[in-house]
Amino acid sequence: MPVNLNPVKPEQLAAIAGVELGVAEAGIKKADRKDVLVIRLDKGNTVAGVFTQNRFCAAPVQISKAHLDAGVQIRALVINTGNANAGTGEDGRQRALAVCQALATELDCAVEQILPFSTGVILEPLPADKIIAALPKRRSANWAEAAEAIMTTDTAPKATSRALDIDGHKVSITGISKGAGMIHPNMATMLGFIATDAAITRPMVNQLVKEVADLTFNCISIDGDTSTNDSFMLISTGQSGAPLIDSPNQPAYAQLKAALLDVATELAQAIVRDGEGATKFITIKVEGGRSVAECKAVAYAIAKSPLVKTAFFASDPNLGRLLCAVGYAGVNDLDVDRMALYLDDVLVACNGGRNPEYKEEDGQRVMQQSEIGVRVELNRGQASATVWTCDFSYDYVRINADYRS
Amino acid sequence: MPVNLNPVKPEQLAAIAGVELGVAEAGIKKADRKDVLVIRLDKGNTVAGVFTQNRFCAAPVQISKAHLDAGVQIRALVINTGNANAGTGEDGRQRALAVCQALATELDCAVEQILPFSTGVILEPLPADKIIAALPKRRSANWAEAAEAIMTTDTAPKATSRALDIDGHKVSITGISKGAGMIHPNMATMLGFIATDAAITRPMVNQLVKEVADLTFNCISIDGDTSTNDSFMLISTGQSGAPLIDSPNQPAYAQLKAALLDVATELAQAIVRDGEGATKFITIKVEGGRSVAECKAVAYAIAKSPLVKTAFFASDPNLGRLLCAVGYAGVNDLDVDRMALYLDDVLVACNGGRNPEYKEEDGQRVMQQSEIGVRVELNRGQASATVWTCDFSYDYVRINADYRS
Repeated sequence: MPVNLNPVKPEQLAAIAGVELGVAEAGIKKADRKDVLVIRLDKGNTVAGVFTQNRFCAAPVQISKAHLDAGVQIRALVINTGNANAGTGEDGRQRALAVCQALATELDCAVEQILPFSTGVILEPLPADKIIAALPKRRSANWAEAAEAIMTTDTAPKATSRALDIDGHKVSITGISKGAGMIHPNMATMLGFIATDAAITRPMVNQLVKEVADLTFNCISIDGDTSTNDSFMLISTGQSGAPLIDSPNQPAYAQLKAALLDVATELAQAIVRDGEGATKFITIKVEGGRSVAECKAVAYAIAKSPLVKTAFFASDPNLGRLLCAVGYAGVNDLDVDRMALYLDDVLVACNGGRNPEYKEEDGQRVMQQSEIGVRVELNRGQASATVWTCDFSYDYVRINADYRS
Repeated sequence: MPVNLNPVKPEQLAAIAGVELGVAEAGIKKADRKDVLVIRLDKGNTVAGVFTQNRFCAAPVQISKAHLDAGVQIRALVINTGNANAGTGEDGRQRALAVCQALATELDCAVEQILPFSTGVILEPLPADKIIAALPKRRSANWAEAAEAIMTTDTAPKATSRALDIDGHKVSITGISKGAGMIHPNMATMLGFIATDAAITRPMVNQLVKEVADLTFNCISIDGDTSTNDSFMLISTGQSGAPLIDSPNQPAYAQLKAALLDVATELAQAIVRDGEGATKFITIKVEGGRSVAECKAVAYAIAKSPLVKTAFFASDPNLGRLLCAVGYAGVNDLDVDRMALYLDDVLVACNGGRNPEYKEEDGQRVMQQSEIGVRVELNRGQASATVWTCDFSYDYVRINADYRS
């Protein structure tokens, strides 16, 4: 059961003018399961993405990067589940390109105008023929069905919409994402696609996708594994009629960015809420650091620690494990006597030891909640960072021990 | 059940002349359990240690380091389980010193001549009074009982001995260790004590302890958590009658180092074999790297990945997870097309993809073994490193979710 994840309501997801969705069942891993999604775009769009930093990045990641770098007009994105096409070398690239070519032929465009995405098992050959055979059979879909089509071990689809007014024009944003394991920043086994009918220049869409990812999809961790495939794409179709955004100094840029952050935060948090085996949603905020990087390092040390995560699972305020993780986060000149640790509003530790006023029952009360806030005050600077994670349960082991069967 | 862990046979553990062991039940966490060990040393010994690099290092670690740095003759080590005395600030240091002072008074020496060690729960006050009350009640013990007295979540004691001949003199070495969770290099919740009756100068014992730790206790990982307390101590009493070792160029230095490595390797591996919830013992060897550091980084990325560890638990050759871990190990210019991955003698991946000859049943065969070898050939240099780890099972979660209850 996901932790406080809002169910997707199809009628609340805005269609985005200039985007046409199609889903199909290719039988990649299981029969009769939606496992292919095509996002077809009208001409006049701009698209940008951020990708996994894993050196073993998958064939589709390599190809999508190259196609985006080519600077051509993107006409479609094609996404499959059930096979990651990662660790597959040159043969994997050829198979991904074959899928792109099939769609390019149908859409009468060049292969570079198609972006491929895959998620699923690593190190197995992509059944490109099955995908190519399924493409002509795809049927028109809404965003809720699109969100379902990209699920792997997710237990629920993840999608949300926002609307805003830019200079008197209604602008819509709709996004979908999928997790649910192997999640760690710099893209994990995570796919996120956000489309808007705002009009944005290519340099601005490039800047927006990075700024938004850094504060959302790059702030989550489920098990510390950075996957081979993961990608977050921002698509603008320009069909809202709102004026073109071509500078970060325009008020519309800030307005749109705020709405995109809102969508991406909900989608990124949804991945954690539906993290493999998750029973708790944990927000880790590290403040008073000398840099965002060191705040993130501390937050991730906590977020990744199996000992911390099993303590959350057990609702056990075994909070020394949190201090221990802070201690090995790699901030080598950290003065532990100056830091403070809070669990929600409860001051647990300060002056290098337990807060004399701290009572076990106060820690226990917070640990029993399904949403828990951890706050670390480093007291050595002005920077801060927030990371979202979940606990570590029997089910995480079960899901990952069973994943291929 | 530990993985192929040899049971300790008390009669095979050599007493070390100049070392007197005593155990007691202080009732620190549980009644009627051996939880205090005193290792009393005759004068004329040399002692050196390596300690956790966690910034939140425990009070006893801070004190043991300071006492060793003082350069005085060490007269005893006092070890308690059930409480780590970590995250306890100045009060924790005072409590550890109170224990040292009680023993110093009994032994008629200075407080700096006592080294304290603690392991157990973090962030709770050390019941120093209980330990001080138990000290006079301690009874003479052998090494097998000493090994039992330092256990926490260990399911079995860990101890071993070796004998060697140096210039016609029989030299004995006996060591004990404890794990079993929170194990990651640069000392984890790991205590290791090795004593020998060889005669070694202080600079040489300092050098030996570091060289031995780097190849043994600093090469293991159970869950990636580097603990607050852990310490590996090397004690030489000089009572064997063998000539003094005062230079690394002496043949006796190499001879003794080899035997110490043998003892420390067995003790370090024993910790992994008895890792919390372990069902598999995995040796990860990374070869052909440009530096030992990068080989260790790759080996630890594999050893720490929950996805890899759950696949081992499931005996599932989901080997893409191994490649994925190599990919995010932080070797940023790694050419994945040049590396090769072996599971025992089975070539799984090469040329950036799956070995065309690889058969699932070959991978399956190796994964079902209780001892598994993973070998990564980076093909970019001459360095290599070996790391030992275990799998990740339901029991790991159970043990760590229950630990304080």
